[in-house]
Amino acid sequence: MRIVVDAMGSDNYPEPDVAGAVMAAREWADEIILVGDRRRVETELAKHDTAGLALRVVHAGEVIEMTDKPSESARKKVDSSMHVGMNLVRDGEADGFVTMGNTGGVLAVATLHSLRRIPGIKRPVLAGIFPHAKGRFVSADIGANADCKPEFLVQFALMASAYSELALGVERPRVALLSNGEEEGKGNTLIKETAPRLADLPMLNYVGNAEPKEILRGDLDVVIQDGFTGNVFLKTMEATAKMVSQLLREEIMAGTLTKVGGLLARPAFDRVKKKTDPSEVGGALLLGVNGVVIIGHGRSDAVAVKNAIRQARSAIAANVIEAIREGAARV
Amino acid sequence: MRIVVDAMGSDNYPEPDVAGAVMAAREWADEIILVGDRRRVETELAKHDTAGLALRVVHAGEVIEMTDKPSESARKKVDSSMHVGMNLVRDGEADGFVTMGNTGGVLAVATLHSLRRIPGIKRPVLAGIFPHAKGRFVSADIGANADCKPEFLVQFALMASAYSELALGVERPRVALLSNGEEEGKGNTLIKETAPRLADLPMLNYVGNAEPKEILRGDLDVVIQDGFTGNVFLKTMEATAKMVSQLLREEIMAGTLTKVGGLLARPAFDRVKKKTDPSEVGGALLLGVNGVVIIGHGRSDAVAVKNAIRQARSAIAANVIEAIREGAARV
Repeated sequence: MRIVVDAMGSDNYPEPDVAGAVMAAREWADEIILVGDRRRVETELAKHDTAGLALRVVHAGEVIEMTDKPSESARKKVDSSMHVGMNLVRDGEADGFVTMGNTGGVLAVATLHSLRRIPGIKRPVLAGIFPHAKGRFVSADIGANADCKPEFLVQFALMASAYSELALGVERPRVALLSNGEEEGKGNTLIKETAPRLADLPMLNYVGNAEPKEILRGDLDVVIQDGFTGNVFLKTMEATAKMVSQLLREEIMAGTLTKVGGLLARPAFDRVKKKTDPSEVGGALLLGVNGVVIIGHGRSDAVAVKNAIRQARSAIAANVIEAIREGAARV
Repeated sequence: MRIVVDAMGSDNYPEPDVAGAVMAAREWADEIILVGDRRRVETELAKHDTAGLALRVVHAGEVIEMTDKPSESARKKVDSSMHVGMNLVRDGEADGFVTMGNTGGVLAVATLHSLRRIPGIKRPVLAGIFPHAKGRFVSADIGANADCKPEFLVQFALMASAYSELALGVERPRVALLSNGEEEGKGNTLIKETAPRLADLPMLNYVGNAEPKEILRGDLDVVIQDGFTGNVFLKTMEATAKMVSQLLREEIMAGTLTKVGGLLARPAFDRVKKKTDPSEVGGALLLGVNGVVIIGHGRSDAVAVKNAIRQARSAIAANVIEAIREGAARV
């Protein structure tokens, strides 16, 4: 496999991006193409032992920064590491693109300037992977499309279900609409209009509406919603998990006995933190464009970069793009 | 004060409903009017020492059950405890109505059949009170209106802000729109269209968009959104807090040392559970109808019922309805 890694993506680029790429090249013997400012990337590479690894650098003269306005920078910075990197995938010189960069920037470059939409796909979708009590689930859209129509959600469901089945190995993924009630007929107008369309698709294992409690206890594999609701959903999960942990820490530190108890129970806390940390579970995928695109957290370290590369590998190996292309031609 | 308590509201009615009413009558010396099946309520009352308490029973021949369809039962069961109880408030025979019953039923009875909307109010709103790291915040709408227009959200903000200021005693409550990004211009169409209208209201301390992390760390007093997003938001908070606690319990029980630690730290866990349990913080309020209406959890025990009655007392004492009525006449 040939995977492009955006060397200028993370908050602390190029250090974690390059270190993660080196780890991946060593672990899987893939060809890794680092895209970014050649001098900075090569200086960073020189800190690692790269003997025998299939690593090469492709120069890109610009960087879309975290603080940049997505659509503007995507239009103007045509020599950015995102443009140059995705163009390698577009032109068949690589199989997938991995970045820790500005999510809006990636969306704009992919959709409007480089890979572009798969024919028939109305809107590309951002899919995330999150932990639930029994494993993990795919949630889409988590932020690419704030306002959606039913026909967008139908395509999100088909794309995310294909990803869950092919790349995550879930047999007949259970697909639901995130809603304010599990009963049929609950939801806003968007959900009510989308539900019967999903129920009509025989290739989809659509199980109805789902509330957050069913999702988090592990009853679903794929959860579909508009990008506004999905973004609020994921940010509420993150913020609540953080608040509960912080309150617990404070209460535990407030007493001598509870402090001792907290010390002894520390490994359990660490395991839960690892289980519920979104960056441990995986980056987001942009589905619906002509190539595998993985977007990790800006605050990723080298291990998180390596994990995002692993995600790209599994999506490439599973031929997810080809499946979406065939599906889009059929529906 | 004269407060009506729906004796047929909770999942286990009339036991917790009556017990909570007795506790409230004893604690605050208010007049409590229990509405429900006279024989069942009096049988339940006989189990308590009610000597000297201002408790009386008003008969209602029907019950809107949790499993009933809201609009249908509100239309047909005209002698329900909800109808009879709210009519007492409508007719000036009581100052507020408290129920642990079917939320949709309460909404339908209040809006369409009994108290009805305050003139000028486009949609009544369900406001909830939730814990954050520094205290609590009001969230509206949490489920009354799945599809909203900007003008609804503007009124929700005014009503919820008035409630926060008058009943909860927050000076110049900080009001925000729940959004997928705190930056101006983020949000779906509804948020983008509502934001400038809120910014234009001098009587409102509107501070912009808020993401879940800012809300839960305690930066806001009032958070406004449509009822679909608000319901998903609150259910995601509940489900995530539960999942994190369950994962922690499992991991703690998995090892001997962590188990001992968990035992010692137990009081800290209990305090956090109490702090984050929505039923400890309070019921929901229906704002925008001609009377104080408090809706507690169906699974409330006697203490939760008493707390819901306390909430009604503070809304009555603060003249929240009058303030909303005056505000609606002005805007």
